[in-house]
Amino acid sequence: MAVYVFGHKNPDSDTVCGAIALADLQSKLGVEAVAVTQGKINPESAFILDKFGVAVPEVKTSFAGEKVMLVDHSDLAQSPDDLKEAELLGIVDHHKLGDVTTPNPLECWIWPVGCSCTVIKAMYDFYGVEIPKNIAGLMLCAILSDTVIFKSATCTDKDKKAAEELAKIAGESDLQALGMKMFEVKSAIKGTPMRELVERDYKDFDMNGNKVGIGQLELVDLALVADIKEDLAKDIQALKEEGNRHSVFLMLTDIMKEGTELLIASDDPSVVEKAFGAKPEGGKVWLDGVMSRKKQVVPNFEKAFA
Amino acid sequence: MAVYVFGHKNPDSDTVCGAIALADLQSKLGVEAVAVTQGKINPESAFILDKFGVAVPEVKTSFAGEKVMLVDHSDLAQSPDDLKEAELLGIVDHHKLGDVTTPNPLECWIWPVGCSCTVIKAMYDFYGVEIPKNIAGLMLCAILSDTVIFKSATCTDKDKKAAEELAKIAGESDLQALGMKMFEVKSAIKGTPMRELVERDYKDFDMNGNKVGIGQLELVDLALVADIKEDLAKDIQALKEEGNRHSVFLMLTDIMKEGTELLIASDDPSVVEKAFGAKPEGGKVWLDGVMSRKKQVVPNFEKAFA
Repeated sequence: MAVYVFGHKNPDSDTVCGAIALADLQSKLGVEAVAVTQGKINPESAFILDKFGVAVPEVKTSFAGEKVMLVDHSDLAQSPDDLKEAELLGIVDHHKLGDVTTPNPLECWIWPVGCSCTVIKAMYDFYGVEIPKNIAGLMLCAILSDTVIFKSATCTDKDKKAAEELAKIAGESDLQALGMKMFEVKSAIKGTPMRELVERDYKDFDMNGNKVGIGQLELVDLALVADIKEDLAKDIQALKEEGNRHSVFLMLTDIMKEGTELLIASDDPSVVEKAFGAKPEGGKVWLDGVMSRKKQVVPNFEKAFA
Repeated sequence: MAVYVFGHKNPDSDTVCGAIALADLQSKLGVEAVAVTQGKINPESAFILDKFGVAVPEVKTSFAGEKVMLVDHSDLAQSPDDLKEAELLGIVDHHKLGDVTTPNPLECWIWPVGCSCTVIKAMYDFYGVEIPKNIAGLMLCAILSDTVIFKSATCTDKDKKAAEELAKIAGESDLQALGMKMFEVKSAIKGTPMRELVERDYKDFDMNGNKVGIGQLELVDLALVADIKEDLAKDIQALKEEGNRHSVFLMLTDIMKEGTELLIASDDPSVVEKAFGAKPEGGKVWLDGVMSRKKQVVPNFEKAFA
């Protein structure tokens, strides 16, 4: 019986490329493994898979009775709804430890680095398995994406070293150009419905009993969304109400200016000032130097909600 | 500020030796780390530390405001009561994934092997850090203890390989003899009150509305308890009546013969035959191949009581 390997809901490039790489490693280790995703992949991931000639994984959302491995998350909310009915064999992640538990021992590789693919690179090395050229390209792009071309606060020396080594295997020499090309694809907004933009990289969190959604758009220039900012604000307000959420925040991250404009829809907007010490005006606030949801935004909000 | 490294409550040898080894590795990696325990160490751990000339870690039970790493568990119930007020930097474990969660990314090495020290051995290798001779001795003994000298159902090839390599570093050539010596210390019964022996590793269960107690003594030789078997039988009878229990069973497990003599105090001794297909005589029965309360005894009694 095959083991299904998949990342979180609303798949991003680390989740997609990480699942493909981990399934490749597992199959080299003698485990029949298949990478799948919990939903449609985003344009950036489609660009990466196309560039390196790797097939788009199938979408699968139900895993009752199956063996599974998780990539890029350890939260039940980001896992399939029937995860508890599956047998969880392992987790590879780089986030905070979530609320997934198991009845049996399992294999967890969870590191405080910028990207799951950095951990998977270490696993390939640890197990002495050669990384195929196209898989190396996928992993490289996942690192460039998750670390915002090494600029994110989450980026570590391990990420840089892994990316260097993967670039050699993949035959990629200009990582800055490759990264910018990816972010241009990622920044594409023309003709995209607001909800699709809001949910392009969106996660719900339970913060001290409050349902809090945080989305992020990483942009090569904030000006790209100047004309649609009001529509985005309306849409996160609607999303908040539809899901009985306490708050929905949308991070408009300018990867060149290295900061984030936070759009706010909240029952209690004062949590933003509590979290960041900056006073919102007109439902938004500029957070200088804030680029990472995981390392900068989620922990600060968790303290503010505590 | 030092990072405290510790294992679970009621420390066993893997928890104690694992904390000492992980603190050593971390300090070689540039992290100021101190191994502590949540309680008094057991006679087996005392023997191991004495043998390899390593100081007994201090007992510490409160960690609010401290940085910590967990060894050998990921359950809140087995962690300090104020764990949530500490900053959790990492977990090294070999059990099912428990309910510990974190607000920040961390480093987890959790593998489905027989002993935490097998994982720590891999970490030393991964980071290219030399294992000191005395620490290798501690880790070796923890593996021998947790895997019952490689006989436990939880023992893997990784445990055997780690133990072999640690034995070379520690200069130990006869693992069987070393393991037996440890289990002799663990088996020590001379001068111990009966009730203390019965409750040394004892647990009450609710089986289909019946209160059922099951204790276990792991012995290198059943002959060690030949003289006190009648007193033990009397004591479990008394324990059964004191607590209005349906039954109290005491497993006298012979780790060399790989079986258990079960002492029986029960309102309905026929449950034993129902559970194991072996007929008790004189309030006891030999169960060949039965060594694990969790994996073999509890499930069979639960079926018999159902």
